[in-house]
Order: sequence, then structure tokens, then C-alpha cells
Amino acid sequence: MSQQVSETANSSGFVHEIRVGWGHCDPAQIAYTGHLPGFALEAIDAWWEHHLNGDGWYQMELDRGTGTPFVSMNLEFRSPVTPRHRLHCEVWPAAIGTKSVTFRVDGRQNGTLCFEGRFYRRLYRPA
Amino acid sequence: MSQQVSETANSSGFVHEIRVGWGHCDPAQIAYTGHLPGFALEAIDAWWEHHLNGDGWYQMELDRGTGTPFVSMNLEFRSPVTPRHRLHCEVWPAAIGTKSVTFRVDGRQNGTLCFEGRFYRRLYRPA
Amino acid sequence: MSQQVSETANSSGFVHEIRVGWGHCDPAQIAYTGHLPGFALEAIDAWWEHHLNGDGWYQMELDRGTGTPFVSMNLEFRSPVTPRHRLHCEVWPAAIGTKSVTFRVDGRQNGTLCFEGRFYRRLYRPA
Amino acid sequence: MSQQVSETANSSGFVHEIRVGWGHCDPAQIAYTGHLPGFALEAIDAWWEHHLNGDGWYQMELDRGTGTPFVSMNLEFRSPVTPRHRLHCEVWPAAIGTKSVTFRVDGRQNGTLCFEGRFYRRLYRPA
Repeated sequence: MSQQVSETANSSGFVHEIRVGWGHCDPAQIAYTGHLPGFALEAIDAWWEHHLNGDGWYQMELDRGTGTPFVSMNLEFRSPVTPRHRLHCEVWPAAIGTKSVTFRVDGRQNGTLCFEGRFYRRLYRPA
Repeated sequence: MSQQVSETANSSGFVHEIRVGWGHCDPAQIAYTGHLPGFALEAIDAWWEHHLNGDGWYQMELDRGTGTPFVSMNLEFRSPVTPRHRLHCEVWPAAIGTKSVTFRVDGRQNGTLCFEGRFYRRLYRPA
Repeated sequence: MSQQVSETANSSGFVHEIRVGWGHCDPAQIAYTGHLPGFALEAIDAWWEHHLNGDGWYQMELDRGTGTPFVSMNLEFRSPVTPRHRLHCEVWPAAIGTKSVTFRVDGRQNGTLCFEGRFYRRLYRPA
Repeated sequence: MSQQVSETANSSGFVHEIRVGWGHCDPAQIAYTGHLPGFALEAIDAWWEHHLNGDGWYQMELDRGTGTPFVSMNLEFRSPVTPRHRLHCEVWPAAIGTKSVTFRVDGRQNGTLCFEGRFYRRLYRPA
């Protein structure tokens, strides 16, 4: 059973900053599309770290035994990502249940929305 | 205006093989989720290469001036990807129009469906 | 104690082929330098796979308990790598001992030497 | 002709911090060796950015026309990198000439030296 989290709940506003660099860019001079899901995932990892006293996925899996396999991801690309600004990824749980969680990740550069992501995961503890 | 491509059309069956290795895997001993979109994109790049006499995105962009910015991607994860088998990515255009194209990519290992992807791109030629 | 392997020994010539694509390239329109070590490592992983009946690093570590931590790597870049040709990585053990192994990896495209790599690893079995 | 930079010169101490996460780690539960060169390169990119008013390799290449192709890289691995601490990459030019530059990058976690890198590049301006 999942509980909707109101949009205002994210006024607490967790934002993870990523340095986009030369090595992320393709010959079109923008960050390669294949890197964007990884940016969003890193931001979700950092969200957990922020909320679990420094424990991200690594510690959740290895120390706490809490696995969270992904079920699906969806990304809408709005504007190219480049190294000219830092990438600010706003992360918030859009729906949290006892068995699953949906994260939203919005990536922005210099105030411009670059992508919107939705990531749906199962939560479990090994028996 | 887009034209539906029948499922039977992909009986021509373009399949791109990817060698999944140690370096793709995370501590859960499966390929890291963040790498899967890149696998699917590489398979689409290879699809173009196969259909354009060896020209993939690199040549399309630099030699032909045909850019194809992504609009969105969606992936459903069905089963973990590991180095125990090659990853076979079946690629086919699910809808082709004059201004856009939707690609489907199904990733399989040893006959098991690992992920299903949908990638929507715009097509354009610089004026 | 290590045993020198004569250059002629590699006439058996294990060569691993890598498809370089758009996503590997940076705005200079060549494969990003940061990807080249990964290409060479994949080639060494494939060398083991070829010589151990299909078992690469993943199976060596998880099934056989044989870890091989890296001690150092050295790469000399001779010519840019691009998507215009497949990358052929020739791999051979330049020195093999009971406790360590040195691999050489030469990357070539269309006959041109692109990079030369040396990778030194320790071998061990957990007690 | 190159000019040696004294070790004390780096007491100014440029240090680039990298967040190592789950996605960087392999099944041995440490950052995959293939990612470490990329970490060091990112740190050098950040060094330029710091010293050129926010312009890293991207702006150097696209705005200033200053290309800096790599000639070689060498890394010595001292201790594993994990997500348990941030990775602090100290960067300094060990030798600067009119036509080339050698960068040193030392990566540390929680005070422990994890790797030492040497990167040699040519400098040029297109005629």
C-alpha cells in the first residue's frame, strides 16, 4: 500500500549537485544521453545517504541487508546537459509503500529543466 | 505522421550482442542498473550501422549532418543481467515517421528476457 | 619468480574486438581518454575467458575464489581511437609468476597502433 | 623546455572531491579499477577549471581552441577505493613546459593513499 507524498513535502528540497565534465560529453558537445540515467541514479543514492546518516546503497546492501531492485525507469529529456553549469538533481519520493518506492528526479542547469525522471523500485529484506 | 511497423517486420531480427563483464557488475553481482540504458543505446547505434552501410550515430552526425536528439526513454527490468551469458539486444523501429522514430530494444540472456526498452527520438536535418 | 614469455609466444595472437561508438567519443570526436583503460581491461578479462573455458574475472572471483588485484597500469597513447573502425586489442602475458602477472595490451584500428598498455596484477587465493 | 615545480608548490593544495557510489563498485565491493583513471582525469579537468576562472577542458577546447592530447598515463594502486569515504584527489603540475605538462594526481580516502597517478599531455594551439 503506497502513500502519496505531497509536492510540498519536497520543499525540504534535497538537491544533489553533479559536476558535468568533458568526459561526459559526446561529439554533439552535450552530455551523452547514456550518462543521464546514471546521473539520476547517483542522485537517488545520495538522497538515501542524506536520510540514513551517511549510508547510501552500498551500506544499505552490504551492512543493512536492504536490497532495492529497480523495476522500471522513465526519463523525459527537456534540454541538453553541458559542462557550462553544475547539474542540480532534485530528488524526492513521489510514492512510498511498504514494498515499493517511486522516486522522482528533476535535473536542472542554471534554472533550466534538463530532464525529468521516474524510478520505481521494490523494497525488501532478505528473510 | 508515423507509420506502425508490424511486429512481424522484425522477423528480420536485428540482434546486437554485448559482452557483459566484471566491470559492469555492482556488489549485488549483477550488471549495474545505470549501465543498462547504455547497452540499449549501443544496440540502437549498431542497428543504424547495420542499415546504413556501416554508418552509426557518429557518421550520421559528423558526415551526414543527421542529428537525432532523444526525447524520452523507458525501461522495464525483468531479470538481472550478468556476465554468465552474452546479452542479446533485439532492436526494431516500433514507429517511424518523417520527424520521429521510436525504437524498441529487448535485452535477453540465454533466452530469458532481461529488460524491455522504448526510446523516442526526433529526426532532423539542420536547415 | 616470474618467467619471461617470448614475444613470439603471442603469435597465437589473442585479439579482442571492441565496438567503439558515439557514446565513447568526446567533443574532440575521438574516444575519451578515460575510456581507454576500460577497453584494455575488458580485453584482459576476455583473455582469461578465452583461456579458462568461458570463465572471466566474474567467474574467477565468484566461482573459483581467485582474486587478482591490480598493482599498476601504464598506457602510452599513439593514435586516436574513433568509431570508424573496430578496436582490436591484442592481449598477451608478458611475464607470469606464481604470485603476479603482467599483461600487455596493444590496441589497433585498421592496422594503426592506437595505444600500448601494461597491467601488473598480483595473483592470490584466499587462505 | 620544462620547468620543475617544487613539491612545496602544491602546498596551495588543490583537492578535488569525488563521491564514490554503489554504481562505481564491482562484486569485490570496491571501486572498479577501470573507473580510477576517469576519477583522476576528472580531477585534472577540475584543476584547470579552478585555475581558468571556471573553464575546464570543455571550454578550453571549444571556446579557447586549446587542445591537450594525452601522451601517457601511469597509475599505481595502493589501497582500494570504496563508497565509505569521499575520494580526495590532490592535483598538481609536476612539470610544465611550453609544449607539454605533467600532472600528478594522488587519490586519498580518510587520509589513506589509494592511488598515485602521472599524466603527461602535450599542449598546442591550432595554427
